[in-house]
Parts: sequence; C-alpha cells; structure tokens
Amino acid sequence: MEESTIHFLPEDIKIKAAKGDNLLDTAARAGIYINAFCGGNGVCGKCKVKIIEGSAPTVQASPLSAAEKASGLQLACNSTIEGDLTVIIPAKMKGDGTGIKRRPKTTRAISAHNLDSLVGQWDIDPPVEKRFLRLDPPTTEDNVPDLQRLMRAIKKGCYDCEEPTYDHPALLQELPFILRQANWEVTVIMLRGKRAEEPDRIIAVEPGDTTGQFYGIALDIGTTTLGAILLDLNNGEILAESSCYNGQISHGEDVISRIIYAQRPGGMQTLQAKVVESINKIIATVCAEKDIAARDITYIMAAGNTVMSHLLLGLNPKFIREAPYVPTCNQMPLTRANALGIDAHPSVRLFLYPSVASYVGGDITSGVHACQMHKSEALTLFIDIGTNGEIVVGNSDWMICAACSAGPAFEGGGIRHGMRASAGAIENFHIDPDSLDPMIITIEHSKPRGICGSGLISIVAELLSAGVIDQQGKFNRHLNHPRIREGIDNYEYVLAWARDTLTGEDLVITEVDIDNLIRAKGAMFAGYVSLLESVGMGFDDLERIILAGNFGAYIDLERAITIGLLPDIKRERFYYLGNASLMGARISLTDHKRFRERGIVSSIMTNMELSENPQFMNHYMASLFLPHTNMDFFPSVAEDRKQRAADRERKEEG
Amino acid sequence: MEESTIHFLPEDIKIKAAKGDNLLDTAARAGIYINAFCGGNGVCGKCKVKIIEGSAPTVQASPLSAAEKASGLQLACNSTIEGDLTVIIPAKMKGDGTGIKRRPKTTRAISAHNLDSLVGQWDIDPPVEKRFLRLDPPTTEDNVPDLQRLMRAIKKGCYDCEEPTYDHPALLQELPFILRQANWEVTVIMLRGKRAEEPDRIIAVEPGDTTGQFYGIALDIGTTTLGAILLDLNNGEILAESSCYNGQISHGEDVISRIIYAQRPGGMQTLQAKVVESINKIIATVCAEKDIAARDITYIMAAGNTVMSHLLLGLNPKFIREAPYVPTCNQMPLTRANALGIDAHPSVRLFLYPSVASYVGGDITSGVHACQMHKSEALTLFIDIGTNGEIVVGNSDWMICAACSAGPAFEGGGIRHGMRASAGAIENFHIDPDSLDPMIITIEHSKPRGICGSGLISIVAELLSAGVIDQQGKFNRHLNHPRIREGIDNYEYVLAWARDTLTGEDLVITEVDIDNLIRAKGAMFAGYVSLLESVGMGFDDLERIILAGNFGAYIDLERAITIGLLPDIKRERFYYLGNASLMGARISLTDHKRFRERGIVSSIMTNMELSENPQFMNHYMASLFLPHTNMDFFPSVAEDRKQRAADRERKEEG
Repeated sequence: MEESTIHFLPEDIKIKAAKGDNLLDTAARAGIYINAFCGGNGVCGKCKVKIIEGSAPTVQASPLSAAEKASGLQLACNSTIEGDLTVIIPAKMKGDGTGIKRRPKTTRAISAHNLDSLVGQWDIDPPVEKRFLRLDPPTTEDNVPDLQRLMRAIKKGCYDCEEPTYDHPALLQELPFILRQANWEVTVIMLRGKRAEEPDRIIAVEPGDTTGQFYGIALDIGTTTLGAILLDLNNGEILAESSCYNGQISHGEDVISRIIYAQRPGGMQTLQAKVVESINKIIATVCAEKDIAARDITYIMAAGNTVMSHLLLGLNPKFIREAPYVPTCNQMPLTRANALGIDAHPSVRLFLYPSVASYVGGDITSGVHACQMHKSEALTLFIDIGTNGEIVVGNSDWMICAACSAGPAFEGGGIRHGMRASAGAIENFHIDPDSLDPMIITIEHSKPRGICGSGLISIVAELLSAGVIDQQGKFNRHLNHPRIREGIDNYEYVLAWARDTLTGEDLVITEVDIDNLIRAKGAMFAGYVSLLESVGMGFDDLERIILAGNFGAYIDLERAITIGLLPDIKRERFYYLGNASLMGARISLTDHKRFRERGIVSSIMTNMELSENPQFMNHYMASLFLPHTNMDFFPSVAEDRKQRAADRERKEEG
Repeated sequence: MEESTIHFLPEDIKIKAAKGDNLLDTAARAGIYINAFCGGNGVCGKCKVKIIEGSAPTVQASPLSAAEKASGLQLACNSTIEGDLTVIIPAKMKGDGTGIKRRPKTTRAISAHNLDSLVGQWDIDPPVEKRFLRLDPPTTEDNVPDLQRLMRAIKKGCYDCEEPTYDHPALLQELPFILRQANWEVTVIMLRGKRAEEPDRIIAVEPGDTTGQFYGIALDIGTTTLGAILLDLNNGEILAESSCYNGQISHGEDVISRIIYAQRPGGMQTLQAKVVESINKIIATVCAEKDIAARDITYIMAAGNTVMSHLLLGLNPKFIREAPYVPTCNQMPLTRANALGIDAHPSVRLFLYPSVASYVGGDITSGVHACQMHKSEALTLFIDIGTNGEIVVGNSDWMICAACSAGPAFEGGGIRHGMRASAGAIENFHIDPDSLDPMIITIEHSKPRGICGSGLISIVAELLSAGVIDQQGKFNRHLNHPRIREGIDNYEYVLAWARDTLTGEDLVITEVDIDNLIRAKGAMFAGYVSLLESVGMGFDDLERIILAGNFGAYIDLERAITIGLLPDIKRERFYYLGNASLMGARISLTDHKRFRERGIVSSIMTNMELSENPQFMNHYMASLFLPHTNMDFFPSVAEDRKQRAADRERKEEG
C-alpha cells in the first residue's frame, strides 16, 4: 500500500494516508475538525480546504463559486489523496494568518504490520488434499480390488503410512466406473485427519487430473452478517470476498430472539433454511466472481457463535437460553455441507470452530486461534465487541473467557436513530469546541440517515470532551445552543437538521441513547475487571489488547478509552485484528498444521458465567459512568479532562 | 443330548442315536440297507423290522397287517427311538435263522465335541455395549454442554480412556431432550472400535435403563439361502434361529446370473431390494418368535460371498465377472443397516465380513475366523462346498485360498432330477448289492421328488460300490436289471418308479448327471491338489480337514471319499463345522476380542486364481474319474474296491 503524509494546518498535525483516501475522512481520522454536516457528499459546501503543497484532485463537480475555486479552495469531502499534501483549513485561520491550534483528539496509530506479528506465518498445506494418481491397471497377477489399488497408489513410497479411511456408499459405488473411464488416471481428494493421529479420509475420486481446480471457502457466520472468502488452495491466495446479511435476521435481531423463534413449530427448520440460503448466496457470489464451479470447492471452514452453529447443524439451542445455559455441544461435528442443504459437492465437509460455552462461540475460538494467543507468553486481553461482547484473558498457559451482555447499542439497537454500519450511518464525528457544531462523516458519504456503533462512540466521546454532556451522560442544561434541546424522551443533541438528512427529520442523540451506550460499555468494562480480578491481575499486567470483530476494526481507540469502553493503557499495546473469526477460518483452511493447533485453544479456555457473578454486578454498577466512577482506571483520560477544563477556564477568563 | 445305542442284526452293527431319531434314518446312517423306496413315509410298507430288545413306538397308523403286527413287525420309517434298541431286519434272515452280514459302508463318526475344539471358547463381551448412566444434572457451576456431560459420565473412573466419537446429526439433535425427559438417567449404546486402537462410538442414547433389552442378529447371506440367529447379547444365548431363501433367487440361481441381472436398468436396485426384503423377513421371524422389538436389536453382523456383499451395499459387481475379476473392495464398509432399507433402529450398524477376492468371500473369512485356523499351527484344509467350492489351506503363519468353479451339481443344478435340500429330496441312499434295489431316505420322509446334493453323492457312491457304474461313471451295460435302462439322454438308473414319486414320473439318475457330478468333484479335488502343490505339500501333511457350509454338515464322509470329492486321509482328521459363516458372525457378535482377531484372517489369506492356472487344468483332467485316475491318492478306497471285487468274485463262484 502506497502511503502519503498529509500535513494539516493550522493544527500542524501529520497523518499517514493511502492513495485514494478521501481527504475529509483523513482529517476526521486525524482528529481535525472541519465543518461538515452533510455527511460528506459535497452538498453543504462547508468543508473547504486549501492545498498548499501537493495536489488532491476533486472527484465531483464542486458547488464552490468560481472565485473560491480561483483562490485555491476545494471541498475536502470531494478530494482524493494522490500523494503527500499540506492542507490549510481556512475557517480556522484568524485574520492575522495565525491558526487555532488544538491538541489532537484521536489516534489510530496501530498500523497493519501488527496484524502480521499476531497471526504469524502460515504454510500452503491445507487440511484437504488433491492428489493426481496414475494407477497400474489390474492384471491376472495383480487383481486386488479397486479400492485396494487406489489405497496402494496413495500409500506408494510411504511404508508406514496409515491407510486412509473413505466415504461410502457413493464413493465406492462410483469407484470402479470412474477408474476405468479415466483409464486409471484419477485425482483423489483427501481430508487430512482432524488431529495428527487420525487417518486421512478419501472423500472423492475424480477422473483425470483436477489438481488445478482446488478451492476452499472460509466463512464467518455472524448473527447479523455472513462473510466469506474464496481461497485458491494451491497457493493460498484470496480470489474473492463477499458478505451478506444472515437471512435469519427477519426472525430476530439477536441470538436470544432466534432461540425463541426456533421454539415455534417449524422454527428450527426455517432458521436453518435461512442461514443455508444465505451461505448459498454468498458462495454463489464469490464463485461467480472468479467463474469457479461450486463443485470445485473442496472444503468449507466456518466459525460462528454457539447459537449460529447450533442452528446451522439443526441442533435446538433451547437450553442455551435457560439457566444454567447449556449448549448441546461445544465441539461441532464435521458435517457434509450438502446434507445441510448447502450447494456443494456431496463429499465436501463443513467444519465449524468449536465453542467454549453457550455465549462464547466458535467465532471467538477462531479469533483467538488466528492471533495465536495460545502460543504467546504475553498476557493478552482479546475483545470482540458486538451485541454480546466476548472477552478472553490469558496466554499460552491458561485462558479465561466470558460473554458480557452488552446489549445491542454497538449495533444500533436501543438507540433512537441507531442503525447498522451501512450507507448513511454516521461513523465519525467531531465537534467544534467553540461553536459546538458537528463534523459528520457518513458511510459512503451520503446524507446522514442514522448512527452506527463507531459513530455512537465518537459522538458520546466528543460530547463528553466538549462538556456538552457530563460524566453521567446527562446534557449540560446550562448550555444555550440551538442543537441542544429537550426532545420527546429527554434532552438531546441535534446531529443534523431535517433538511440535511436522508430521512427528512432531525437526526438526534438522546440521553436515553447515551444511557444505553453507558450500560453497554459498562458491561464490557466490568467484564475485563472481573476476569482479570479472578486471576489476581489488573490492567497494568496486560501486555496486549487485541480488538477483534468488524466493529473492533473501525473503533476509534482514543474515543473508546475516553468513554471507558476500552482500558486506559499504553496505546501501543492495542492491536486491531479485524474479522478475526474469518481470519482463523482462512488460516486453518490454508495450513493444516495451524488447523490442528485449534484444539489447544478450546482445551485451555475456561468460561466464566458473569451473569451469575455478584462481583461482576458491582463492577458493572461502578462502570456506569463516563469513563468510570474510579478515575484511577483512566489516568490519561483524567489528565486530558484536567487539561480541557483548564483550557475552558482560560478561555472563559480570556 | 440323550444318546441311545441301536444294535442292528444280522449285520451286528451298533450306532449311537438320539432320542426322537427316526429308526430308518438311523439304519441308513449306519449303512444298513433296508428296502424302502417310498422315501420313508410309511406307504410302501417295505421297511419292516422286528424290535427284539427295547421299544420304538410307531408314530403313524401302520399299513401292516394284523398278523404282521402280531408277529412283532413294525415299519422302521414309522418308528421313533426312545432308548437302546436291538433290531432285526427280517428280510435279511435266511430260513436257517442266520443273517446276511455285510461290512458297514458308511461312517459318520465325527461327533460334535470336535466343533468345540475348533471354535474354542468365547466371552460374553460384545462389540456393542449398552451402559446405563446417571448423569449429574447441570448447575451454574457445572454447565458443560450436554454432549460433554455424557462423555464425562462415560469416561468416569477411567482417566486415560479415549473420548468416544458419536453419531450425528440425529443423536445430537435428540440428546438435550432425551437427557431432560429422562431426568438425566439414560442408556448409551456404544460401538467398540473395530480395531483396538479405534475409539468407541456412541450410536444411540435411550431414556432410562434399557440394558435388559440387548439383542444382536448374526446373519449368513448366501446366494441361495439366508440364515439368521437372534442372540441375547447379555448372555450370548441363542434366542431364535431361522432361514429363508434369498429373494434374489428369482433373478438367477448363481452369482454369475445375478451379476448379469445387475447390469440391466434398475437391476442393481432390484437385487438390493430383494435381499433386503429377505433380511427383513428373517429378522421379523426371529424377533416375532421371542416377542422382541426390531428396534432393540443393536448390531447386525453378517457374512456373505463377495457378490452378495456387493449387491447388499449397492456396489455393482460387474467387474467381478470380467477378467481379471476385480471386486470394488474386500473390506466392506461398516454401514447403517437402516440406510440399506433394513428394518432397524437408524443407528444400528451392519457389519459384513471382509472378502479375500472376487470368489472367496466374507462367508469364507467368517468360517476360517470361526474355526480359528489363524491360531493353530496345524496344517488345515478348509473346504466349503457349494456352487463355488472355496478352499483354504494353511495355518497361523500363512493361508492360501481359491475358488473352484464346481458348478451347481451339489445344489441340484445340471442334474435331471436335481433339487435343493428340501422336502422330498433324496438325501440318503443305499443299494442292495444283490438285488440292486434302492433304499431311499427323503427329507421330511415324503415321497421322493428329486435328488439333493448329499443324495447325489450317496447315489453315485453306492452305484459305484455296487458295480452298477464304472470309474468313468458309465453304467455297466451288461447288467440286466429293470432299473438300469437306456433313457432319453443316455443310460440311467431308476431310483423310484412313477407310482412312488411325488411328481408322478420315474425318478432317475443319468450318465449325464453322473458326469456333471464328476466334473464338480473333480474341480474341488484339483483345487486341493493345486493349492497344496503350490506350497510343496501333499495330503499326508494335512492335520485337519474342516468341512464348512450347510452342505458340508450333511455330507457322508465315506461316500464323499469314495467318489473322490474329499481326500482319502485318516477319518479322524475330518471336522464338520456346519454353517461356519453364521458361526463366525455369531462369535464376533458375542465377543469383541474374537471379533478384532478377524483382521488377522483376511490379512494372511492369499488368493490363487485357479481358472488361470495350467497346473489346475491338468489336475482337473486327472480328477475326472471315480475317485481319481491316480489311485495312490485313494489308498483306502482302492483297498475297499479290491475287497468288494473279491466279495463279488466269491459270490459268483459260490
């Protein structure tokens, strides 16, 4: 990736950006406030910048006047980074040419190379194998059965190899005909033993040499979204990627409502059919992209939470919802994808990562497996934030994990204008500390339509820093500002006026919304504390915090710490892993030795039931504050608050 | 079994008999000729005997005159042995009261205790296990998944036990509900690993304690007949036995015609359905007998020849018939019986004994396994005579085996009045050396309808001994006897006149019939010689000859040697094993340690293709003689012939 340096003035802040990045996004990412309330679609015409070194072509017809253009102004939201730039934000320049300098508010300093250090290297040596064989045709002197002839060819030159097992009946029924039609030249597809001591298994025999067509699917089966990667198993390359909604979503937003739906007559069947339909859709998409036949896929490796895994396998998750929360199984049986209704060759297996407990699923095991926590002595906190925040603490010797019922706030649930991360969702937000006016960045730079999880964190963090809300999440009733008003529920802040939104109504964040966020982040934080406390440790002992999940990949570290969602430890100890679950499946699909290590992960993970833990409840109550009632947990935030208070005082004095 | 001694006069021959035995049968077995041409149904009134010590009640209304009855005469065919007897055959008494004494002609001296020495002891420790478990109900502190809880209970008190595998999806789908409905008290059915190093497998979980209902089926799947034993796996007892025809029989008498039929459109499906139908029928029969539910059967262990095994599993045997005679597989995959259409609980497995080659099938492996040839240093010849005679030579160090295309003569095929061993089939036969009149014993003592295999051997041996046919199987044209005549085909002997048969036509044996028998026994004998020769051995080296198969159990040893079907070695070296294939399945089903030894059998057996072997052809040509062109092979028969010739000479002189 080609990197450029963007230098913002008057703040004098430099940030790295990639070629093709949007300039407004980059400013927001650097914590540079630019007035921009249309979401970044070139409409409001507010985000004017002047490029004083380098050039950033504008990509849309500009609404600026000819005079403005002549003076070198352009809209940041329309500008694409091509190389190094120095940019002035004219609105911040005083008449005397000096700028209003501010301390930077955000850091997203963790760069991609950290990912490599976490996931490490892997080999191109998949858990499934295609091998082309030339068999000796049978003669009177050598008339062993067809199966034995095949086995002999497989074991050739390997005297103490164990004989593979094989699928039946279809494989055996076809074998004599395939061998003869193919003139004894065939390709066998073999599944390596799930563990080293298990024999390999022949799952298919194809006429001729088909080793060139050798593909696998890594699949992340989320409650909301499915993600898939099509891999070329001959070289490990990603051929295509896609995601889609989980078709079960029409029967409930979260796992609990799915479990309830599953208890209806036919509910199980419907939910299974829906997720299978979604899997088929996503497989069709990635295959179409590279013009690959679905039958050339030889393995599907998937990860999903415990409920998703149960529903896909047709296991009723009923008792997962009832205390004491018992799943049917944690180790999911290796299944023929076809038997579940998945469009795949009948022999193709679907592997599902094992769960640890009812609410710590295979997606977490896969993520922990991907980042090799089980191989590192460094004490690590692994966090996957979603409807259910799942956390893991430990290292290569031990791991404890827990699920925190964070509630759906991070996915837009329980938030008046909450929405999932899609077009029109506010994903980044800044506030001008003087005017208290917003800078809004939406996904796909459309007019704003709602607030997604990362937007919510930004908004609350900014409102808090600017003193618009207090540490209990209550609006400052003394601020006389048109955007701060008493709404239907309670006090609220207008993020965008009706004329600037896609919905045609004012887009607001309310005290109730903020309260929901506080509960969500409080549950997470109480989880970290409870888990660490249970092993007699604290945040200072953590050498690494790994943020997993799609949401984790978009989170603004500084702001998440500001509101108390993440612990306030040295920033360089944070790692972004992205979709760790999909990454685990991908690595396992490419390297069977890495795959076999997954057993270690689930075997050393111990689950802690937080819902039944009185200590957790205490920690939770103490966390219902921004960032926390105990500011000793948040030294850098405390320091920052002190500075800002001083700033404000100075300003009021001056 | 209560044994009585029957003393026949004037021959002065004593023979052991069981209570309830028929007196005519017993005479025939002892080689005592009694004129009896109605087959033994009390009609002809010829088989008069006088009981001079003991008593044998007559079981039917006697056709004898009051005077005859008054003189103490009764019909042997109507008399049942109740205890020790001394019997005079009045027809053989001269006027002076002296009797016509003859040397005994037959020995069936091998008694049942030999069987025990062959098959040995076995334990009641089946390859399938039912275990009742009381699980601890889950609590918050102990909320492991249901499957794990079950595994834990199974492994309780066994720290290094390997975790069993388990069936899915049905088992897992039902598990949570069964556990809770049964209040955590369940019975697991576990399949022991096929080999010691394989983990056990949970195949079913049933509510409550069902260990009392624990049954298995041992099954012999013959080309013609199916045999089944219902076993109580808690104590190894045989609860019921039954046999029925293989429903495939309407699509061909032998394996070759079945293979041909299988190539028709839908032929495979039809043949599979037919044998499954027969299996279902036989299972229903044995279960009904003991009022047992078919779903309480937990294992089906079967043996069949290679073609039968293929057809049952839906594997096309096409290439078994085409040189170089290659089956799809020898090791038959363990299959769910239910998946084949067998009426059984869905989890129940059907095991099929492995084959050695296309024409040496699982029935032979099972038989050899049953009689523990693989554990004995004694050089043994194992013979199973049927359409295809299969022979095995070897001991615990090595075994070679072969199939001899004996043709269907022993099953009634290619014989004018040949039939299978069922009601009305002549199964035993004697000839009066003076009158050349027959003594006919039929199955179920009905009027004769035809000749079965053992009858055929008796007839040819008797005709040969009496000089009615010569060593080439040709009738002595110089004998002027109403029963010896030129028929449609060629010369023939009338076994029963039309008025005495069930068919209403003369029942004959022809020179063509005899020729077919000579070919059949010639193929067998050439097989023995070829196999022994290939290892540089001869008949004198044989320490044991084991006769397997239902036919083998009925064969008259002395007569079979007389015609050259069996080698002429010391009679005490012969053992009757009966239905060895069913015996193997029964032992394996009762004792998993014995079951696991089966691997040794198939691994040390080497197949020899006789059809391609020029030496075999030479031996075959030399065997087309009664008993053989080389009389050195048959020293006792040669001696007997010499004696009889002397007898005849003396008689002619005297």
